[in-house]
Amino acid sequence: MRKKYTSPQKFIKPSYTYLIEKKRDGGEFTQDEIRHLVDSIIDKKLPSFQLAALVMVIYFQGMSAQETAALSEELMLSGEVVDLSKITKPKIDKYSTGGVGDKTSLVLAPLAGACGVVMPMMNGVDEDFVISNLDKLRAIPGFRPDLELQDFVNQLKSINCGIVRQDSQIAPVDEVLYKMRQGTATIPSLPLITGSVLSRKLAQGAEGLVVDVKWGNGSFIRDVEQARQLARSITRVGRSLKRRCVALVTDMNQPLGDTVGTGLEIKEAVELLSGEGPEDLKELVLKLGMEIVRLAGVAGSTLSAKQTVQRHLADGSALKLFKKMVDAQGGDSSFIDDPEKLPKAKYIRKLPAPKRGYVHTINAGMIARGVQILAQNKRGSYDPSVGVSDISKIGTQVKQGEPLMMIHYNDESRLDSALEYLRTAYRLAPKRPSPPQLIVERVA
Amino acid sequence: MRKKYTSPQKFIKPSYTYLIEKKRDGGEFTQDEIRHLVDSIIDKKLPSFQLAALVMVIYFQGMSAQETAALSEELMLSGEVVDLSKITKPKIDKYSTGGVGDKTSLVLAPLAGACGVVMPMMNGVDEDFVISNLDKLRAIPGFRPDLELQDFVNQLKSINCGIVRQDSQIAPVDEVLYKMRQGTATIPSLPLITGSVLSRKLAQGAEGLVVDVKWGNGSFIRDVEQARQLARSITRVGRSLKRRCVALVTDMNQPLGDTVGTGLEIKEAVELLSGEGPEDLKELVLKLGMEIVRLAGVAGSTLSAKQTVQRHLADGSALKLFKKMVDAQGGDSSFIDDPEKLPKAKYIRKLPAPKRGYVHTINAGMIARGVQILAQNKRGSYDPSVGVSDISKIGTQVKQGEPLMMIHYNDESRLDSALEYLRTAYRLAPKRPSPPQLIVERVA
Repeated sequence: MRKKYTSPQKFIKPSYTYLIEKKRDGGEFTQDEIRHLVDSIIDKKLPSFQLAALVMVIYFQGMSAQETAALSEELMLSGEVVDLSKITKPKIDKYSTGGVGDKTSLVLAPLAGACGVVMPMMNGVDEDFVISNLDKLRAIPGFRPDLELQDFVNQLKSINCGIVRQDSQIAPVDEVLYKMRQGTATIPSLPLITGSVLSRKLAQGAEGLVVDVKWGNGSFIRDVEQARQLARSITRVGRSLKRRCVALVTDMNQPLGDTVGTGLEIKEAVELLSGEGPEDLKELVLKLGMEIVRLAGVAGSTLSAKQTVQRHLADGSALKLFKKMVDAQGGDSSFIDDPEKLPKAKYIRKLPAPKRGYVHTINAGMIARGVQILAQNKRGSYDPSVGVSDISKIGTQVKQGEPLMMIHYNDESRLDSALEYLRTAYRLAPKRPSPPQLIVERVA
Repeated sequence: MRKKYTSPQKFIKPSYTYLIEKKRDGGEFTQDEIRHLVDSIIDKKLPSFQLAALVMVIYFQGMSAQETAALSEELMLSGEVVDLSKITKPKIDKYSTGGVGDKTSLVLAPLAGACGVVMPMMNGVDEDFVISNLDKLRAIPGFRPDLELQDFVNQLKSINCGIVRQDSQIAPVDEVLYKMRQGTATIPSLPLITGSVLSRKLAQGAEGLVVDVKWGNGSFIRDVEQARQLARSITRVGRSLKRRCVALVTDMNQPLGDTVGTGLEIKEAVELLSGEGPEDLKELVLKLGMEIVRLAGVAGSTLSAKQTVQRHLADGSALKLFKKMVDAQGGDSSFIDDPEKLPKAKYIRKLPAPKRGYVHTINAGMIARGVQILAQNKRGSYDPSVGVSDISKIGTQVKQGEPLMMIHYNDESRLDSALEYLRTAYRLAPKRPSPPQLIVERVA
């Protein structure tokens, strides 16, 4: 429900050109002005060229924490706000800026649920080259990513978790803004990212938010300083909106885990839920999980948070809940019991190391692009059987001809162009590099 | 005639988003990229929202001299380029950023013509609150501002001068850009102004250009430093396009001359052409006239330039040519012989000084706005009889109740709101202020 304008006097709507000029000259928008802009987008009164000018002027001039909070609030109020008040358990959401091979949310949603924390997880607009977790879940036959809002709420109430596509009624103006940002090269604007994330998560009913801000060649944030700034921006603005927020700045200069691809990643997520899987992912799941249970108040100290998370992985309750969730959303959970049932690619071949040495750098973005070429069909959906596995991570020693990764593919004709990306993604060097720091900073 | 892309290899057209991003990150457009953008506007392929993002990103990131030269050239080539090669006399144009009460072009066109210099003067898009010289000439019954391109060229050939509305075939993409800049608060972008001015003047056949860059409260350039930068930008880019260019940075912190309004300004222009009129205008006409005849090569030294200009004012040849021009364009030149025939307002009243003192500052923009309220009818054309005259300039001593100016008006109902602007335009102070410097800098 939209509120009235906050001015004590009647708010006189300024022209869009005036607002562009005001921001151009470093001015600060009032809450009323931001509401006017959001209203104008809802009413389709703001011409797209002036919206383009606005996002660009915001890109260059930024927004104060107060402005960004107002933007988040107004974007949130542009659509439905999910009412989770009937759910008495703590409701904490997680947001990631998106990374290659990142399957942590698939693990965290049931893990948090097992710990008694409800995660109302809706997948929204995302970076182009990253496979969304919903696309991964579709590798499980029958899985339904689209639920009616009320059905989603009921599912959360009964089993604590669910992963669905963001309902179109959630922050619809944010979607307009996001599309505009895509076409105008303004995706990396800190206040606009902040407003987008917070508006959606708040509209989805989150009381608190754990944010994973990734930086590196597999993220749209290439610069660690910018990642730190975004982490600070989201937590600061979140707090000013009376939401508990913690952000971790994490590395995305190589894929997370050993696999990229829908079915392969589901398999890896199941391993993690069984307390196994690659070290980097295990560490990240643990750290994010600890933040979630602490933010929820389920655990007080760092130690008890760690124990809570580890226990629910070890005792199988997280995995059990994952199956419940798959069931609830129409998926065949026997594929979780036996991930070997997941579709397999016709061919598997290695990407051979061109020389001996250590993996010095990996371009995660290029690996994502290579997998996309192998997997994406014309309708934009993914072939669940293809991808890459056994990814040699930074610091791995290889001999010439040894596999840098295994490539799972069905279509010979796509292999060559995919290989170009996958090959270029690797740089080998004679000396062992220092491994990248997975968690760079915690911002609370 | 559009040229082919300049790349030796086939030019691969980049996406608009890529180009926005390139400029966003401080990159420089190639000539091919700029041509691609201009072509895309011609072909209506560039969506308006991406054009908006482009002008805004250029506003913030600027353009190098080389880029701006490429932009000017491509904008020029987006339409007709007037062929004045059959005219053997030097062809020098004058451009002003626009000022309140500025009637110098009305004087300079016939003055230059009398000196043997052809000024192919086309009035283009202009600042909103400034009355264009064409609107002033319409105070003369019968005067036609629109000529066919060929008729205009023939008139230049036979009488050396003409003042017409810019033909729609001249730099049509500049017009698209200009409208976009109006709606996105990017009018003050130096490279975009430079590209706009040079493309149009070059397309109009100018071999050289004298530019009057005005700064102050009656100009869209409020800052003298910005005016200096624009003067440098136009002259530098003009030179790189092999055109002779001189720019004067001049004061626009009070109206030029003693009148603002269409008929009143025609009268004042006739006075100037007779070697009379207010000092500030006389000085500016002289200085700009000298630049024109020197750039044309008609006069070598400063002294001979001055003598040439003064002689053609004193001997009546400039005035005679003005009448010829009015005749040629269908106007009744008896109104020039006897400006008292020009339409007169029903009422004249004074704007009384609210107290004694010296005129300390004048807001020229507010005077323009006041006159606009008095004069502009619903169809956007001007009542030729109204305006203000006998403007007390900065430094004038007045007693309480003495006129700061005389207001000529026909419509009582508009007077009050016009008066608000006119009154607020004046600030009186007890001490005599130092007069503003009319010509701040000469940039060659």
